[in-house]
Amino acid sequence: MPELRKDPITGRWVIISTERRKRPDAFRVEHLEPIDGMVCPFCEGQEAYTPREVLSYRRNGGAANGPGWDVRVVPNKFPALQVEGELDRHGEGLFDKMNGIGAHEVIIETPDHKASLATLPATSVERVLWAFRERVLDLKQDKRFRYILIFKNHGAAAGASLDHTHSQLIALPVIPRNVRDEISGARQHYQHKERCVYCDIVRQELDQRARVISENADFVALSPYAPRFPFETWLLPKRHGSNFEEAPRHEYETLARILKDTLQRMNRALESPPFNLIIHSAPFTESAQDFYHWHVEIMPKLTKVAGFEWGSGFYINPTAPEEAADVLREVVI
Amino acid sequence: MPELRKDPITGRWVIISTERRKRPDAFRVEHLEPIDGMVCPFCEGQEAYTPREVLSYRRNGGAANGPGWDVRVVPNKFPALQVEGELDRHGEGLFDKMNGIGAHEVIIETPDHKASLATLPATSVERVLWAFRERVLDLKQDKRFRYILIFKNHGAAAGASLDHTHSQLIALPVIPRNVRDEISGARQHYQHKERCVYCDIVRQELDQRARVISENADFVALSPYAPRFPFETWLLPKRHGSNFEEAPRHEYETLARILKDTLQRMNRALESPPFNLIIHSAPFTESAQDFYHWHVEIMPKLTKVAGFEWGSGFYINPTAPEEAADVLREVVI
Repeated sequence: MPELRKDPITGRWVIISTERRKRPDAFRVEHLEPIDGMVCPFCEGQEAYTPREVLSYRRNGGAANGPGWDVRVVPNKFPALQVEGELDRHGEGLFDKMNGIGAHEVIIETPDHKASLATLPATSVERVLWAFRERVLDLKQDKRFRYILIFKNHGAAAGASLDHTHSQLIALPVIPRNVRDEISGARQHYQHKERCVYCDIVRQELDQRARVISENADFVALSPYAPRFPFETWLLPKRHGSNFEEAPRHEYETLARILKDTLQRMNRALESPPFNLIIHSAPFTESAQDFYHWHVEIMPKLTKVAGFEWGSGFYINPTAPEEAADVLREVVI
Repeated sequence: MPELRKDPITGRWVIISTERRKRPDAFRVEHLEPIDGMVCPFCEGQEAYTPREVLSYRRNGGAANGPGWDVRVVPNKFPALQVEGELDRHGEGLFDKMNGIGAHEVIIETPDHKASLATLPATSVERVLWAFRERVLDLKQDKRFRYILIFKNHGAAAGASLDHTHSQLIALPVIPRNVRDEISGARQHYQHKERCVYCDIVRQELDQRARVISENADFVALSPYAPRFPFETWLLPKRHGSNFEEAPRHEYETLARILKDTLQRMNRALESPPFNLIIHSAPFTESAQDFYHWHVEIMPKLTKVAGFEWGSGFYINPTAPEEAADVLREVVI
């Protein structure tokens, strides 16, 4: 059983996932699948290589766990958390832990092994976002969970272990620290000004334009004022809303379009970089409706992040966001 | 002039270091020096390739910036921050920034190109720690600075751009976010219990032994209870003290010994892994004396850290600390 352990100083929770344990001498070997000649478990026709699906969108009413799907969601074969059991929170002297209860799912974004969110039609990207929404709405009924992290690692250097384009979802019984920090910063701003800080940012950025990459009816893509990484990009809904899964239907369509557009721009300007994408949304258990504003953060992996940056929380970024926005804005799609 | 910018939501400060700017098409090229046939600027006899030294320990009274040194401290040739100027804090609408004022120095740990902190004699490691101390005591007189980050990136995968063993020091006009988090967590524990949380950890770990790797008169090396990374290791002084630079002289000797020992254990057990090392010490401007406890954190770089882990502050660690401590404890040095 995996464990969730809390650092007694900072309150940071960590998953100790013994199911994923590797032997010390195996550490230097990186996962780099699909290994030549091996079957890709995310390809159409290979459904038997994954755990049984929890959701799929199918064109012609084909049976579950067979071919004929557009998007397919399955439990992670090597889950960081385990879905069955009780949390069993307890102490160990100074320390706090609980069982590593949670869901860990994989969203296979397309049957096409060679496609990506940048190359798929916008309607297919929209279906992926819709699958995220459906899974969140389902999982948030489980009262053990407090947060659902939706993220994508694209490319081996960004942590992807399979080439076939996919996203992941982790439902957690605790709220990740960076989410807590965002919530608490946004709450402070609201208490002070009675305005959402993200709404304020959207307004100021659309007014100044220096960090705006693109926009459509519902979203703006921008380089944030204090980015940790070169070409870090945020997609912010113009309309205030605290939760991704509660967005009106048309916003999944406009988000799909600006997401595809942003990834195409990055591919052109930065030679198809590896990247990480994270959906930031409010925890279920907090009433953050007035002051938190869901959004998407994309971090191309262009520079090595030295450990001191993880260790200190202090980032050195060699590219000004105004310059990054210029480069991405000028890409001809 | 580099800039320090503050994220308006989380309060996280970021250095936008335009001096280090690279062109977008140069991003994919990683620094991997020394390039064959090139001179290593950190080797003895090559002193002219670095900025002029700010400190050196010399065997026979040789002149500054020439050969004959054991440890040499020079300003970073490509500094992330600039030492001259005023902070000039100001706002930009919603946003806050100041000039990127600070010091960025390199501690060249030995003239020997092939040596490392694991292979150098303990007395040489002690001299390196002593150089850290001297530089901190000097720089903290500059009232513009609030924190000094001392860190080491060892190996290209950990962010080192030169092979020749060295550490770095960055003096900052702001306090890094993770330091703030530690200070505030430690303060809370103290307010609640009137004890230092690190002292409590040292006591409990020495009692339980399951996560202890080694100890000497003044220090314990342990795998922390909730480690972010496999084989993350902390070196904790047994005696309470908030600041590295205020440790009694004999603790630099015992720290040198346990540091060398720990790195040797990692080299044997994990095939000389790349690693990052960070000294955690209290900010100058806070009176954290009673409740903060300086220490060293070492993070071998064995697994890829996926961006979602930076982005969420939520870590998945496949190795239990008890297992890591077992492996490192059983290494025969």
